[in-house]
Amino acid sequence: MALFVQKFGGTSVGSFERIEAVADRIARSARAGHQLVVVLSAMAGETNRLLSLAKQVAATPCPRELDMLVSTGEQISIALMAMALHKRGLKAQSLLGEQVGIVTDGRHGRARIREVQTERMQAMLAYGIIPIVAGFQGRCLDNQVTTLGRGGSDTTAVAIAAALKADECQIFTDVDGVYTTDPRVEPKARKMDNITFEEMLELSSLGAKVLQIRSVEYAGRYNVPLRVLSSFRDGEGTLITYEENAMNAPVVSGIAFSRDEASLTLVGVPDAANVAATILAPIGDAGIDVDMIVQNATGDGKADFTFTVARNDLDQAQALLAPVLPQLGVAALRSDDTLCKVSVVGVGMKNHSGVASQMFQTLGQEGISIALIATSEIKISVAIDEKYLELAVRSLHQSFNLAGEE
Amino acid sequence: MALFVQKFGGTSVGSFERIEAVADRIARSARAGHQLVVVLSAMAGETNRLLSLAKQVAATPCPRELDMLVSTGEQISIALMAMALHKRGLKAQSLLGEQVGIVTDGRHGRARIREVQTERMQAMLAYGIIPIVAGFQGRCLDNQVTTLGRGGSDTTAVAIAAALKADECQIFTDVDGVYTTDPRVEPKARKMDNITFEEMLELSSLGAKVLQIRSVEYAGRYNVPLRVLSSFRDGEGTLITYEENAMNAPVVSGIAFSRDEASLTLVGVPDAANVAATILAPIGDAGIDVDMIVQNATGDGKADFTFTVARNDLDQAQALLAPVLPQLGVAALRSDDTLCKVSVVGVGMKNHSGVASQMFQTLGQEGISIALIATSEIKISVAIDEKYLELAVRSLHQSFNLAGEE
Repeated sequence: MALFVQKFGGTSVGSFERIEAVADRIARSARAGHQLVVVLSAMAGETNRLLSLAKQVAATPCPRELDMLVSTGEQISIALMAMALHKRGLKAQSLLGEQVGIVTDGRHGRARIREVQTERMQAMLAYGIIPIVAGFQGRCLDNQVTTLGRGGSDTTAVAIAAALKADECQIFTDVDGVYTTDPRVEPKARKMDNITFEEMLELSSLGAKVLQIRSVEYAGRYNVPLRVLSSFRDGEGTLITYEENAMNAPVVSGIAFSRDEASLTLVGVPDAANVAATILAPIGDAGIDVDMIVQNATGDGKADFTFTVARNDLDQAQALLAPVLPQLGVAALRSDDTLCKVSVVGVGMKNHSGVASQMFQTLGQEGISIALIATSEIKISVAIDEKYLELAVRSLHQSFNLAGEE
Repeated sequence: MALFVQKFGGTSVGSFERIEAVADRIARSARAGHQLVVVLSAMAGETNRLLSLAKQVAATPCPRELDMLVSTGEQISIALMAMALHKRGLKAQSLLGEQVGIVTDGRHGRARIREVQTERMQAMLAYGIIPIVAGFQGRCLDNQVTTLGRGGSDTTAVAIAAALKADECQIFTDVDGVYTTDPRVEPKARKMDNITFEEMLELSSLGAKVLQIRSVEYAGRYNVPLRVLSSFRDGEGTLITYEENAMNAPVVSGIAFSRDEASLTLVGVPDAANVAATILAPIGDAGIDVDMIVQNATGDGKADFTFTVARNDLDQAQALLAPVLPQLGVAALRSDDTLCKVSVVGVGMKNHSGVASQMFQTLGQEGISIALIATSEIKISVAIDEKYLELAVRSLHQSFNLAGEE
């Protein structure tokens, strides 16, 4: 008998038919003899409906009151699911974040979980009652309703799995697992049976949006085995754990990409230590994420400094740089708003050289020139012309044999 | 500076326009220097919407889960109202029943308040923050969400007013006070400035549905001055208190009535002590309310036994009596499903004889014959042919000079 935390997202409980289907799924797991804790999101569309109510009353509603308002969404889901499970002869009780004892800090709308109390859930499990927990919500120490921010239900599920030392945290979504790349770009993309937390973090932050980054980080930190699987189709999904044997790990696990990148290049900045900080400080202060950063010395005590931002941040970034340019004696400011980013990711990379050269060679053979390169221990990213995105993804997928063809 | 608990019902917060109007009303009271606690119902229609969600999942949803579900309705109202008050520069915070500390028993769907904790509200009031409390809901001792049943927001307001020893509990509704009778029947009906708890109980239970009976009982028990007034129009409404000087109280305060009454008469039952119990036991067991009861000895050791029920209970009551009739040797069972009930109510009646005879005389002058009579200390009720209802109400209103014309 295993203990599973099963989380179902908004689309999984988005209609009465789907609530019934999910209830069937839960009933099958329960009848297979497993202990279950279920975590639910609000029904698809409900959170947006509630936010639009708030917008009709106040242009900038107070975050505390927004939390009070939107936390009703999950409350409705859990009550309805408990009813659907009762109908199937199962014992189940819905629980609010506060009733579980999900204690958060006081940052409304983006609270972090501080503690998950387990006494009530443990007692219910001992009596054979399935706790149906409202995701996304908690209470801070002075007993205010808080929410964890969008996608916070994943975090709720992982935090509960960690606190209960569950055998697995199962995240049910509308995809049946994590793929080697986006199947809409490369139809040969293969669902992976296993992947490491590190790879999942690189893949999800790079655009393969299956899981909330924070929940993956959290699962990694507490070593909670995380499984992504489909709410609607049977299958084993993808299990995310720590690598057990890095030598056997595939060199490259997957190809991630993101569209709508833009680069800014400051030509002829002084080749000095604090230049990067001077350039990036106003960008960061404005809340704009900077991704790839490259500084090339040009040999005359000068350097070219290039970085990428999301394309719709480009204009604002340019404006923010304007006062900095004369200060640094920049010769020219160039921008490119036709870029995309493609990354190969894999923990096996740590122990294999040659991944970068194979990547560059593959792209070169297709005539794709590389604008920028950034690397980490388990990832190599390149910025290229966006028109080559699909071609680059498919040729790399082929080159690293990700479709699993021998 | 006074402390008022202000309760606004579902129609008062039933649209964005109305929420804004109520927020204006609250702001006026706050700016007049009063301390306020606001209690809200769910937006009109929301509770029914939630119940219909439940009905789509389960034919007979578990009461615990229904409470979890429907309690979201008030949660939405309080969050939106807090936002609307912030917009007006007022400090306000929404509070769930649980956050206030409204402790109830565990009877889901019809819980009774056991205790209202005041520390949090007191602290907020001390800081000039208006608590906006979700009506209708509480928590029982093992931390389950409970609801007080339909109309429970009135009870929440009165319970908070009692716990805080508020100067007044103000119930804002869509009428501007309590009238001497229904203005739709007698246009000369006059809004009363004052009325006693006892009179209000008799008037509301007799069909002048302005306030929940339970909240009036509660207010009476804890001696909380209760004021009924309009959400939408200015005015002093009607203040409900204990009588201060019964000698000065009007002999008759108001005329209540109810339609759709029916009577059943058992002709020739034994004139014995336990006959009433034998007849009424099966009726009561079936949950049918019996109202007026009259037993007339006919002089031969027999009696005629008559009682009234709501008209749509008549068929069931007749069926329930069938087995009893032969047992009692009843000569005939007669029924009348064309009755209504008209009552005159007034605390001053206690000290004045002659009200009954004036009532009967007035009706007699109009040619209205009386089928049944029932009396209490402050009320005289008659059952009459329903076609005379309006005539009876108007002639009694005139006879007791309730329009206030000298």
